[in-house]
Amino acid sequence: MKFEISEDTIIALATPPGIGAISIIRISGPESISAIDKIFSGKMKINDAKSHTIHYGKIIYNNEILDDVLVSVFRAPNTYTAEDCIEISTHGSPLITQRIISLIIDNTRVRPAEPGEFTKRAFLNNRIDLTQAEAVADLINSRTAVSLRGARNQMNGLLFSKIRSLRQQLVDISSIIELELDFSEEDIVLFQKSEMIGRIKDILSEIDVLLNSYSFGKVIRDGIHVAIVGAPNVGKSSLLNYLLKESRAIVSDTPGTTRDTISEMISIDGFLFRLHDTAGIRFSVDEIENEGIERARQVIKNADIIFLIGDVIVGFSEFLEEELHTLNSTVRVLKILNKIDLGVNSNYSENFRISAKTGFGINNLLAGLKEVALHGGTYTEKDIIISNIRHFDCLMKVKTCLIKALYTISENYSGEFLASDLRAAEISFSEIIGEITPEDILNNIFSKFCIGK
Amino acid sequence: MKFEISEDTIIALATPPGIGAISIIRISGPESISAIDKIFSGKMKINDAKSHTIHYGKIIYNNEILDDVLVSVFRAPNTYTAEDCIEISTHGSPLITQRIISLIIDNTRVRPAEPGEFTKRAFLNNRIDLTQAEAVADLINSRTAVSLRGARNQMNGLLFSKIRSLRQQLVDISSIIELELDFSEEDIVLFQKSEMIGRIKDILSEIDVLLNSYSFGKVIRDGIHVAIVGAPNVGKSSLLNYLLKESRAIVSDTPGTTRDTISEMISIDGFLFRLHDTAGIRFSVDEIENEGIERARQVIKNADIIFLIGDVIVGFSEFLEEELHTLNSTVRVLKILNKIDLGVNSNYSENFRISAKTGFGINNLLAGLKEVALHGGTYTEKDIIISNIRHFDCLMKVKTCLIKALYTISENYSGEFLASDLRAAEISFSEIIGEITPEDILNNIFSKFCIGK
Repeated sequence: MKFEISEDTIIALATPPGIGAISIIRISGPESISAIDKIFSGKMKINDAKSHTIHYGKIIYNNEILDDVLVSVFRAPNTYTAEDCIEISTHGSPLITQRIISLIIDNTRVRPAEPGEFTKRAFLNNRIDLTQAEAVADLINSRTAVSLRGARNQMNGLLFSKIRSLRQQLVDISSIIELELDFSEEDIVLFQKSEMIGRIKDILSEIDVLLNSYSFGKVIRDGIHVAIVGAPNVGKSSLLNYLLKESRAIVSDTPGTTRDTISEMISIDGFLFRLHDTAGIRFSVDEIENEGIERARQVIKNADIIFLIGDVIVGFSEFLEEELHTLNSTVRVLKILNKIDLGVNSNYSENFRISAKTGFGINNLLAGLKEVALHGGTYTEKDIIISNIRHFDCLMKVKTCLIKALYTISENYSGEFLASDLRAAEISFSEIIGEITPEDILNNIFSKFCIGK
Repeated sequence: MKFEISEDTIIALATPPGIGAISIIRISGPESISAIDKIFSGKMKINDAKSHTIHYGKIIYNNEILDDVLVSVFRAPNTYTAEDCIEISTHGSPLITQRIISLIIDNTRVRPAEPGEFTKRAFLNNRIDLTQAEAVADLINSRTAVSLRGARNQMNGLLFSKIRSLRQQLVDISSIIELELDFSEEDIVLFQKSEMIGRIKDILSEIDVLLNSYSFGKVIRDGIHVAIVGAPNVGKSSLLNYLLKESRAIVSDTPGTTRDTISEMISIDGFLFRLHDTAGIRFSVDEIENEGIERARQVIKNADIIFLIGDVIVGFSEFLEEELHTLNSTVRVLKILNKIDLGVNSNYSENFRISAKTGFGINNLLAGLKEVALHGGTYTEKDIIISNIRHFDCLMKVKTCLIKALYTISENYSGEFLASDLRAAEISFSEIIGEITPEDILNNIFSKFCIGK
């Protein structure tokens, strides 16, 4: 299945909205060049300009100069979308960009781009595969050096190459099986059963390596959710504030963040941790219907790790500890004993001893947090990490098909069943890289992009 | 006086901060090209590239690809700053741009740019005059079509040409006077006194036209401040909300705007009005020290126009009306009688009758507001409008010098006094266009720019 590329020309603001020195408007499609020539006045027509050249001039409408701009020309196929593209570099004013975009839409057949439509065209025009297209969005949204590197690897085509190579191995097996089927009446055996099983098991073990990387991949892509939980006055907010100060907090871009749902991002050695304070919330049975408590419950349910804070005076809340495990059976709980500067009289079965006041034990805690979060995982430029749930799901489908294929072989079922199992696995591979991907899945992927990308 | 241009190379993010499809990093100065070649890997060295061409490649450091980018090359002198310039078009991630900028700063002699430093260099390198440089900032910050056009006219050099032409007329007069001084012993009179007076008066009248445009210029550049004042429950907030809905409110970019200091921007026929609600504030003598009242007083003091709201039940607060004129003797007060839908029993000396509930009378009110605000002023592409207080002040200095010159002539003082008066006027002209402008004034102008411009 191949998708038809729409023949129309699209336009959008490509730079972040707001005031700056420069803004860029991007146009892509067959009428890009004729559209810009309708409103641009420079030394030459853009139609006569070479690809990858820049032209100074003015955007003029009704004898009014809207702005003086630089127009960059990109001629198909060596462009972002593989179509003719134009970039208009304007003064960085929302008013100017909005007026120029309206001017073009009103006076040409160019239409506003949908979210991710430029990258979707790059994909549909075979400039990049689907994993690379997805990496574009991950790249832009990366918060830390490590997640950036993960997206970068995927963008460089590492995952794409790996999937293609595994699929080729399957295709090789399939073609032999289909050859056997063609000659089935002559009872020619081109493949020893044991060799076939061996080859499929090799592919399965490579898939397992990829699948196993997902827990780490999810961590580098989305960060680790840490809920800070504890009885009142044990120092939850003090610890959060100390960590934010220590690790140069990454500013959240979520607007309207209020202080009663504190969620902050910090980076430890390039890994993103999302800290959720549940300060001020008591788990009392009387207040079971309280909205604040419900919020805290949600935070705990979604947490990867919990900081259960106690202090040297009251220790840890046993009630709370039980509640945590009831809410989230897989969560890792780190018991952190605070206010160590006041002296310790007994053992509270804590994992870490800290003082959020003096900073004692904090480095130790951070090292422990990283260790627990990453399970000791690291990775290099060359490693392929699955960080996208869609890729994970497709690989699980491949795995299921291959296990079924092994069963088919062991049971001596007809070669046709085996061929069908392998074909299903190939389709799931193809779905990852976007060669066979249902349109609604594609639309879902690109709708999450920003406009202009 | 001419300023020395610094020999170093500067870098900054040129697009608005935040996440988008594309971000642009801008470099300017003699080492722009050598700096990019240290970290850029493409088909050719940028050093070998022609001006105004675009090159695809990767930013690489320590074998890690930071991003794939487009590098645009601009060779002096046909660039924004008249120096060698580089623009790096990256994926629109704050993390990526920050890493690339740091990489360049750490590995080359390029330093971070100060606010407005690119435009300052354009000015110092005689690419643009000071009024055009100032217009760049006005252009970017324009909120409405009309203010944009004003900035645009100034950027096109209309004011620059006008000032140069007026100064030339002065220089012509001066040179004749100085010639007379050279031949003073021979008592040659090259100029009739009456002609000299006539010529100076011509210049003065042109300056008056410019000075008179300032009240209008200020309006189109900064907008008109309207304070909405009235007793409780007469419908101040209802009117504000109705106006915002009617005129497609311009979203304020001021962060942290809270509802107790309501200030909203609306555009009427392209003119910007800033509406300040003083809702909930009573002018009672008991609460004289109240902070809220103090804030309302400030709003009234800074207002150009006041909407004094009354309603058909209680009419207008006389106490309030007196207070308004005490606080701001020049303000124009529009008395607006609200709740006209309830019926009117008497005449309250109102200027407008409205119903913020049904919308009755609102269009009439807006037309009246515009009329009062603009004093019937309009302007076209060709008009020169003074919108900058610095220009206004310089022109006032010119005016003072020329009036003094006329006095010097009428009193038959020595030609040397006259020459001195005219020279002082010429200097003030030169200060407007930046040919003779003290460095602290320049620094002040450019420090208000955004970084990267």
